[in-house]
Parts: sequence; C-alpha cells; structure tokens
Amino acid sequence: MASVEVETELAPYRAAVKEIGDKVRQLKLDKADENDIKRVVNELKARKKVLEDKELELAPKAPSFDRVKLEDLLKRRFFYDQSFAIYGGISGLYDYGPMGCALKSNMIQIWRRHFILEESMLEVECSALTPENVLKASGHVERFVDWMVKDEKTGDCFRADHLIKNSVEEILSKDKKLSKEKRDELEDVLVKLDGFTSEEMHDTIKKYGFKSPITKNNLTEPVAFNLMFPTQIGPTGDFKAFLRPETAQGIFINFKRLLEFNQGRLPFAAAQVGSGFRNEISPRQGLIRVREFTMCEIEHFLDPADKDHPRFSSVADLELNLFSACDQMDGKGAKKMKIGDAVKNKVVDNETLGYYMTRTYLFLVNVGVDPNRLRFRQHMANEMAHYAKDCWDAECLTSYGWIECVGNADRSCYDLQAHAKATNQRLTAEKKLAEPVQITVTKAHLNKQAIGKKFRGDAKAVTQEIESLDESELQKVGEKLKADGKYDVTVEVKGEKKTFTLTSDELTVKQVEEVKHVQEIVPSVVEPSFGIGRIMYVVLEHAFRAREGDEQRNYLELPAIVAPIKCSLLPISANEKLNPLIEEVRRELGRYELSHKVDDSAGSIGRRYARTDEIGIPFGITVDFESEKQPHTATLRHAPTMQQIRLEISQIGQVVSDLVNNRRDWAQVSKEFPAFTAAEN
Amino acid sequence: MASVEVETELAPYRAAVKEIGDKVRQLKLDKADENDIKRVVNELKARKKVLEDKELELAPKAPSFDRVKLEDLLKRRFFYDQSFAIYGGISGLYDYGPMGCALKSNMIQIWRRHFILEESMLEVECSALTPENVLKASGHVERFVDWMVKDEKTGDCFRADHLIKNSVEEILSKDKKLSKEKRDELEDVLVKLDGFTSEEMHDTIKKYGFKSPITKNNLTEPVAFNLMFPTQIGPTGDFKAFLRPETAQGIFINFKRLLEFNQGRLPFAAAQVGSGFRNEISPRQGLIRVREFTMCEIEHFLDPADKDHPRFSSVADLELNLFSACDQMDGKGAKKMKIGDAVKNKVVDNETLGYYMTRTYLFLVNVGVDPNRLRFRQHMANEMAHYAKDCWDAECLTSYGWIECVGNADRSCYDLQAHAKATNQRLTAEKKLAEPVQITVTKAHLNKQAIGKKFRGDAKAVTQEIESLDESELQKVGEKLKADGKYDVTVEVKGEKKTFTLTSDELTVKQVEEVKHVQEIVPSVVEPSFGIGRIMYVVLEHAFRAREGDEQRNYLELPAIVAPIKCSLLPISANEKLNPLIEEVRRELGRYELSHKVDDSAGSIGRRYARTDEIGIPFGITVDFESEKQPHTATLRHAPTMQQIRLEISQIGQVVSDLVNNRRDWAQVSKEFPAFTAAEN
Repeated sequence: MASVEVETELAPYRAAVKEIGDKVRQLKLDKADENDIKRVVNELKARKKVLEDKELELAPKAPSFDRVKLEDLLKRRFFYDQSFAIYGGISGLYDYGPMGCALKSNMIQIWRRHFILEESMLEVECSALTPENVLKASGHVERFVDWMVKDEKTGDCFRADHLIKNSVEEILSKDKKLSKEKRDELEDVLVKLDGFTSEEMHDTIKKYGFKSPITKNNLTEPVAFNLMFPTQIGPTGDFKAFLRPETAQGIFINFKRLLEFNQGRLPFAAAQVGSGFRNEISPRQGLIRVREFTMCEIEHFLDPADKDHPRFSSVADLELNLFSACDQMDGKGAKKMKIGDAVKNKVVDNETLGYYMTRTYLFLVNVGVDPNRLRFRQHMANEMAHYAKDCWDAECLTSYGWIECVGNADRSCYDLQAHAKATNQRLTAEKKLAEPVQITVTKAHLNKQAIGKKFRGDAKAVTQEIESLDESELQKVGEKLKADGKYDVTVEVKGEKKTFTLTSDELTVKQVEEVKHVQEIVPSVVEPSFGIGRIMYVVLEHAFRAREGDEQRNYLELPAIVAPIKCSLLPISANEKLNPLIEEVRRELGRYELSHKVDDSAGSIGRRYARTDEIGIPFGITVDFESEKQPHTATLRHAPTMQQIRLEISQIGQVVSDLVNNRRDWAQVSKEFPAFTAAEN
Repeated sequence: MASVEVETELAPYRAAVKEIGDKVRQLKLDKADENDIKRVVNELKARKKVLEDKELELAPKAPSFDRVKLEDLLKRRFFYDQSFAIYGGISGLYDYGPMGCALKSNMIQIWRRHFILEESMLEVECSALTPENVLKASGHVERFVDWMVKDEKTGDCFRADHLIKNSVEEILSKDKKLSKEKRDELEDVLVKLDGFTSEEMHDTIKKYGFKSPITKNNLTEPVAFNLMFPTQIGPTGDFKAFLRPETAQGIFINFKRLLEFNQGRLPFAAAQVGSGFRNEISPRQGLIRVREFTMCEIEHFLDPADKDHPRFSSVADLELNLFSACDQMDGKGAKKMKIGDAVKNKVVDNETLGYYMTRTYLFLVNVGVDPNRLRFRQHMANEMAHYAKDCWDAECLTSYGWIECVGNADRSCYDLQAHAKATNQRLTAEKKLAEPVQITVTKAHLNKQAIGKKFRGDAKAVTQEIESLDESELQKVGEKLKADGKYDVTVEVKGEKKTFTLTSDELTVKQVEEVKHVQEIVPSVVEPSFGIGRIMYVVLEHAFRAREGDEQRNYLELPAIVAPIKCSLLPISANEKLNPLIEEVRRELGRYELSHKVDDSAGSIGRRYARTDEIGIPFGITVDFESEKQPHTATLRHAPTMQQIRLEISQIGQVVSDLVNNRRDWAQVSKEFPAFTAAEN
C-alpha cells in the first residue's frame, strides 16, 4: 500500500475511474445499446490508464535502474542481440548468445520440471507450419489483425495507433503556441487511443490531417493486417499455410489422441514448448514485442461441470496480488488475497484456474521475478475473448510499465467446438454417470440386403447417408415414412448428386429404450500460456543491480538455479603451478554437472570478479598458493554479498550443487566454513 | 565380413564397380572433358547402387522385422503421427505425442551433455525466419532446388525423378510382353536415375512418352523448384524471407560476436538445436523425409593451417566402420579402422574431423543405434559440395536401406567468406605469429580539419569513403595524387551521388613500415550436423523386437537413458491396501527424478507388462501383498530379459537411477538381490 500522501494525490483519479466504472455497470444493468456501452468502456480504459500512469509516477523507484546500461551489458556479453545485424538487422528478431541461450534453457527446464513432471502432463510437439483451414476454424484468419495505414503514393505502412501516437506527441512537443483547449483534446486522444475502433482512428487522422512521417503524403483508411506469416506448402503454391501464432492449436487438434493416451479419462493436461510467430507491423521494446518467440503452453481439459482441482488445498493459503475486474472498475489497486478465499468468494472463477495461478506465481518467483513487482490482473468483461469465462494475466512491472507475461484463461469449450465443427469430428469425452439413466433414442433400421439388391454400387453411399443422420433428422425421416410410405435420399455419387427412393420395407425408424452409463461432454479448457522471452527480460531487469558505493559497477543477481553459468574459476596468478589445482576443481564441478567458466586472463582478481558478476555468475572459486597445502583448498565467493569462505576442494561440488538447487542457502554455508577476507582489487 | 558364398556371388558386381571406378580415375588423371567424366561417374553411381542392393539382398535379415507392425505401434501409442490428421493431414509434417516427445527430448539432452557441456561449446539460438539476402549469399536461393514437372493443363506438380521411377516401375510390372532388351533398358533408367541431369530426365520423359499419372496430360520440361518455404516480413509484402533450411547460417552470421565472446581465440565451437524447414515436393518414408525437423548442428571454427585436435589422442584407438571414397570406387565394402590410423593414412583428412566422427559414433551408439548397422561413408569428389574439403556421413541401415543421419564435413572457409563478401564485413580472426614480421603497408593520411572546413556536412562521408579503401585501392589513389595533385572521390549523400575533389594538402598516401605480431585469417569450419528425427526413427527400428516364442508380442528395447518413461508401477490388484505402498514407491522415484507411469487398470499383470514393454519402459515395479511386511519391498523387472528381483522400496530409487544412468548394469544388480519368479500371465 502506498503512503497517505500518495493516496491523497491519487484519490481524485481513483474517484474518476469509479465514477465511470459505475456508469458502465448501470448501462449493462439497463441493457443499454452496445455502442453506448463501448463508448463508456473506452472512457473507463482511458481513466484507468491515467490512474496507472499516476501510480507509477508516484511509486518509489528502484534507485539506480538504467535501461541503457542493462541493454549495453546484454549486447556486450551476448545474452542476445539483433538477428542478421551484419546484414542490417531485422527488427523484432533476436539471436540468443551463449549466456541468453543458457538462461533461457534453464528457465524452460525448470518450467518442464515444475509443470510437466510434477503435474504429470502429456507433452507434445506439433508442427509450426499450419494449414489455413485450421486457423480459419480457430478464428485467427479473421480476427488476428492489427490496423495499418499506408502512404497513398509510396505504399509505406504504419501501424495506425502508433502513427497517431507519434503524430500527436510531435504536435504536443513542438507546437508551443497550442491553446490549452487543443492541448487537452490531443492528450485525450493519447489516453483513449488504445480503445479506438478503426473508424475512430480514421476520423482522428482526417481531423488533424496526419500524413506519412517519411514523405508527408496522405494516408489511406486503416486496413486490417493479419499478423500471421503466410507461406505455401508443396510446389503448386496454392496450398496456403501460416506459421502458427501460438502453440495451443496443435494441442486441440490432437485432443482425441491425447484423450485416448490418457485411457479416455478426464481431467488431463497437455503441454507444449515451441516457437510462435507474429508478423508485428513495427516491433519495438526489445524482447517484449518480437516476431519469433518461444512459448510454453498448457491446455488442461476438464469436465465443465466440475472445475475443482484435487491439489487445490495444498495451495489454498498462498497469497497472490490480485487486481480484480471489480477493483479495476472501482479505481482501486491490486490487493493481496489467499487464493482459497478468492475462489470461495468467486473473485476467481474456479479451483483449477486458481490452482494454475498459484503454480504460475511459484514458477515466476523461482526463476527470479520480484514478487513485489508481480500482479494478477483479471480481464474485464469487455477485453476478454468472447468465448473466455475468466482470465487472469500475470503482469510484471518493468521500465516499460506493467507487462503481460503469462495468461491464465478459462477458455470454456470454444476451441474444441470450433475444430469439431470445421472437421465434422466428435471432439468429446465420455463422462461416467453416477447413476445409469434410461432414455429413449430414435434409431434407423436398414434392410441392407434389399437396399443392396436395389441400388447395387450406390447402396453403400445410401446407407452411409442414413447412418450419418442425427436423432432430430431421423425423427423427420420417420414422419415422412409414416406419411408417404417412402423417403427420398439425395447423395453425391462420383461427384454427381443422385436421388434414391427408400420404401418402408427398406428403412424403418423406431423409438428404442436404452440404458446409458456415460454422457458425452465437450471438455472445458483452462490455459496457462507463458511467453518465455518476456519473462526472461523481466528477470534480467529485476536482477540488474549496481554495487553500493560504486554505481558504475553493475551486476546481475540472478537466482543460482537459472544463472547461465554457476561458477567462475579464477587462478590467483598465471603461475603454472596452479594448473593441476584448477583441473582438480573442474573435475569436482563436472561430477555435479555444474557449468563453469575459467577466467585465466590477465587483470586483477577484482576486475575478473566484476566481469563474472556482470553476467550473473553466482559463485566464484579462487585457487591461490595456499591451495597447494594438503588437504587442497580453495575460496568460494558468493557474488551478491561478495563474502568468501575457504573450504576443501573435495567439498566444493557438493556445496555449490546444494546452493544452486536451493538445498542450502549462503547464510547456512557461510557459517559452516571459515570466512576468507581479501580486498577485491 | 560376409560369408564366402556371399562374396562369390558379389564378386562380379564388385568387379563391375572397380572397372568403372578405375575409368573415372584415369579420366581425371587425363584431365578429360567435364561432361565425359560426369557420364562415367553416373555409371559408377549406378553400378554402386546395384552392388549395394545386392549386398542388402544377401545380408542376413533381422529375423522378424515388420515395418507395418512398428508403424502401427508408434501410431497407436502416440509416439508420433501425421499433423492435422482431423483436417485430412499434411504429408511430411508430424506431431510428436508424449512418448515421442520424451524420447526426442532425452536424445537432445544427451546430445547437449555429450557435445555442448563436455566440449565447452558456445550454444546459440538464432531466428528461423531468414531474409532472402542471407540465403542468397549462402547459395541456397540459387542451388537448394529439386526438379519438378507439371501437368501442362492442370498445373499438378510431380518431382521429376519420382515420376520417372513410378512410370518405369508401372511399365515393368504391368507390361508382361516387354522384350528382354526393353526391360533391360528400363531397368537401366531406374539404376541411373539418381545421377540424371534435368536434360536427361526430360529426354527420358519424352522418349517413353510419360504423362501425368492423374490426368494423362502431357508434362512440362523439368523446372527447378526451390525447397525453402517463402514468406514476407513486415506489412508491405516486399521484404522477402524464407524459413531457414538449416540452422548453420545463424551461427556463421554470429561469428564475430562468438569470437569476441571467446576473447578472440581460435579454435572454438558453437552449437545450435533448432528447427529447419524444407518444402519437399512429395515427402514420404515417414520421419526420414519431412518438411519440418529438428537439427543439432555444430560449427567448429579453426585455423586452416592447424586442424589437429587436443583431445584426438583420447579417441585415436576407437575403431569405426569406414567406407572411403577410394573403397567405394574399388567396389569394396566398408572396413573397420582405428580413427588414429585413418587420419595418419590420410583416409580422413584431419584430426578435428576424425575427432568429431568418433564423438558422433559414441553419441549414436549411446542413444541406441546398433553399431553393426552404422557406417561412415565418405563423399566421393563428385558428390561433395564444391567448397567442402572432406565429408563423412554417418549412415544407418534400416528397412529403407542406408540412411544418412549425421553429416561430418570440413567446409573449409566457404561460409564465412560468402557472408563477408555479401556484407562487406571482415569475418576473420587474428592469429598470433610465432615471430613478429616487418611489413610495408600503404596508408592514407587525411587532414580532417581542412576537409571539414571545405566540405562541411559532407566531410564525414568523404573521409569514411577513403578509410574504407583497401591497400591496392589506396596505391592507385597515391599514383593519381602524384600525377594530378588531386583525387576525385564520389560518394552517395542522401541518396544522391556527389563528387568531391581532394588535393595533396588534404590527402596523402604513404608507405609505412610496420611490425606485425598477428596475422588475419579466415577460419575453416568443421561441421557435424545431426538430423534428430531420422536418428530417432533409426533407434526405434533398431529397438523393435518380438518375444521369442511369441512373435505377436512386440516390444521396444530402448536404452534406458533415452526411454520416454523409465519405470512402470503396477499394483498386483486393485485392492486399496496397496495404495500407500504405490505412493511410497512414487515418492522414492520422484526423489531421483525418474519418470514413471502407474498402470492400475484391470487386466492381468502379464498383459499390463506387455503394454509397458511395447513403449520401451525398461523397468517395472510391482507391489503385492508381500510388500506390506516390514521392511516394505517390491519386485523390480528388467523388460528385455523379463527377469525380476525383490528389493526394499527404500533402495529402488538408487538402483533404478544407477541402471538408467549406466552406473550399474542388470547383470550386476540381478546378482545383488534375490531373484523373484512369477509367471507373466
């Protein structure tokens, strides 16, 4: 909670949000016109943004964070850098160097252990190339778009909202003679821009006469631009496909196989780690918005009538920072709440969703997200996909503001239904009924012998057509047969439609009593979806520090478990006598599979430590002339505190392994072994 | 070595190869016409193929291998299956289910440990989306093609060689009245098809009047079809890109960053695990030829003048099955040779290449490739890429014949040079000279003050242009200055070419004596490149067995270290009393991170074991009513031998962990604990 002074300053902004939030509620209650509601919702979003900006402005800053310095470090030590830089580079594409690659793969390995292994999920790996019809069914072809405007003469493209933002900001900063009224009006545009429809963007561009920033030519109306990368499969060029924009669809499409693998039982969860691709119009913000990225997605399939989770009680007392839709409308802030209470009070829709939110929290904090800069924000009804039931984004606070890193959504049964409809397949599960029920079903009886004789080669098509009819259709057939004594069926035979007449001797329709033990259901899906690149960037920002008293000396305080390299290994001098000792330490570390880096370059020990601190190596081992004495010893340094202890080389592997895997912490270890003090210079 | 009878039968085929191989050698010695050589080389390839087919025909078969049965198992238990099957499926695209996914990720993890960790390689992860100019420079835009023919009317596409093969085979099988002469001629086409040029394919199609197999329409001439998937980056549609056909280019492009990361030192190796994409015209053969696949590639950069490897002595005595180019031309078979001897005798070009061949061998055998069905085949001069110096493919024998699974190539400095040329960047390393040398260099001296005054805003462009000139160009500038007292330089300023005149007061060119301690070199590259999907398929084929005496009961004998699930866990009955014991075993396995699967379904213990054997679970634990007695015990079953032992539950984790990680083998373990005997039914 912020201080009293801050809250006093925020109060009018909170009140402004609540005022409009209440209006939205009232309009919905009154079942007002959709467009009226939309207009007020946009105003609500705008006021929320003003409040959030104010909150961030007044929040105590991390003392010395400097993004330029962090970015310089990440580039210089090759965590990641722009792809194809020697060819001029492509925005939104990044290559990971050895440090970034190790950090990322450690994070993914922890993710796999935390989710797939501990929760016994079914891991799959599906194709990234995806045929157009699949993405038509999922809605991506139609709806996965951004709006762009084009230079009328050159065809240069601009993301419409970005163009408006930049144009407005340019006027605001350059035109000093702007009237107060005009200035307010333009600032209002900036605030509302996020909620603009394409018409509103077009009107704004026309009203202010915005032009192409490059040529000053006129701009076209905003046009929808699909964010998927198009390609074709096969040589003819007419089999359209896209690179998948998310990995989830691959799991839905494999639902039947996975259900079968799980011996037909619900619930079960499937998971996938893989690349997604989005053709952003003009990506920026480093790893936050990119064109190719790694996702970790889970689809938890469950009975829509039972969303309890067997392990929910084990996490019920965990407190999360929840920012509910209701509090957002009331102009309030996020608040700490036990997930058990949140589900009980219906703040979070169900146990399974709540369970995954806590698992998400534990994962994020474990890999290095600062829990004080992490919140779960609920989607408001108007921002949720139309099929979603409840959705909570894990958002992390960075120098770019609050960034969505994980989505936790209850997607109901939308996806399976969409693919079932498109493919005419039954993507359903069977649920055992508590009590068997007796039901009346309508069934067709075909006299196949008679039909075979009558229609010969066409008989099969005719019977198949009848067998594919559902109950309500069959009832109509029955009525027809009763009335006319015959039924005409039209089927396609070798590309031609033909009609065949069936008599009551060949086809009868009857009501039959049946006892059912199972019910066919379309499972609901709870989807936690992780953007690994974004989480990695957040972790780097949250880990970036400057040494107290020496602000030029930056370092990364990464949790040891994700650190790209666990240990540095520094001989105190280049004297060859130390080589066998270095080899001895290497063997010891190798036995515990601890990644390490020997730095035998020239330079003082302090300078070399600074270099290893910079890339987040948590532990440093120094071998000196003291080390030769029996039993061989070395010093072990803990980077965050710069404390050192002295221990036997034969103990090092076990100690560092325990520290890395959180079996012991530095406070414990530093008490077990004698401290070693030496100036770092 | 094959038996005497077999060798007798093969002798004429071997002689036929040798005869033509000698002819190739003679023609090369005589520096004969390229086309003449090519024709004879095609004949050589054809005869080699006949010999190899004969060898395979006469080789002793694995007794009961049935590919249909294996494929059924892999589909049924969801190792992998066709992608988008509910939408009709796309050939050449596969989704990995839980079993395939775990098997594959275990293989990749072993690969990472074996290569990246043990050899301290620099791992990178680069973008799959790749701009066109990068792939132009690498030669892929021009040369990465297959030949296809089109139906003249419908535009249907066919891979030219496949079409010829199918058409010829159809005639051979259907036309019973074919003359012996005609039959021989057609069989000759089949044999030579692999080496056909597009002209030869066209001639064949014309000669025999082959038509579209679908419509019987005429076919076009063969046209080159690029196998890369095209796409565009950004919204204008005019920034062309492809999905990368291999991961290697990303490493070459990052060479400078990686060299810097390695503190400027050679040699070093970089590695990448990632997806590659190839738009095959008509893929078949399951995982052998696919459109999207995982590669593990290494680029080892080294001094072209020193290709020794520091650890070569540690592998020098390892025997590999080598099939040298020379033996191929002589009609001989592969032979066992120590890699040390192979390098010494120049069969293998250098130590580094030889070192990676042994590392490749060890990896493949470790993950389950049968060493008796593994050979290293050297590319013959005519099949090697024009820039490669030496190339050895690790080939595995399968029901599809010998399949290339790993390429080990010395690519010399081709790739770095190609990208350096395309980008005008120096992709070089500095090599310390043993002795400093004194050299004369040509240098420009610019009077920057005078130039600044004279050209104002254009001065920077002018000086940059001069500074970018190389020595030979500078010499010409010097001559010009001497002759005319001035030099005209043309540069592009804001898109326009402008010419500026420099006088001798502003620019002088001098010869300077310099002492050089380093030499600039373009590193050579040794590239081991692994196709993980192919290796996985080979491992599955080599692991497929039938129980002796019960040929219907198939199982997979996978090495425990790659097995998707390490342990099955079967309660002897559904009695609830056993549940706490099952939980106790689960906890014990969890402590050692051993993946396991509880099968508490109905069905006899034998039936359940058969089900776990089928998916390659190497160990099975059964809990029975005996287990309750203190101390709690269970039985442990070794799937390949079906032997069982009885041990305490508290010992199980350690024992299974040791077995999985090859610290103990079953022979040892089965002696340490009492045997348990029970009929499996």
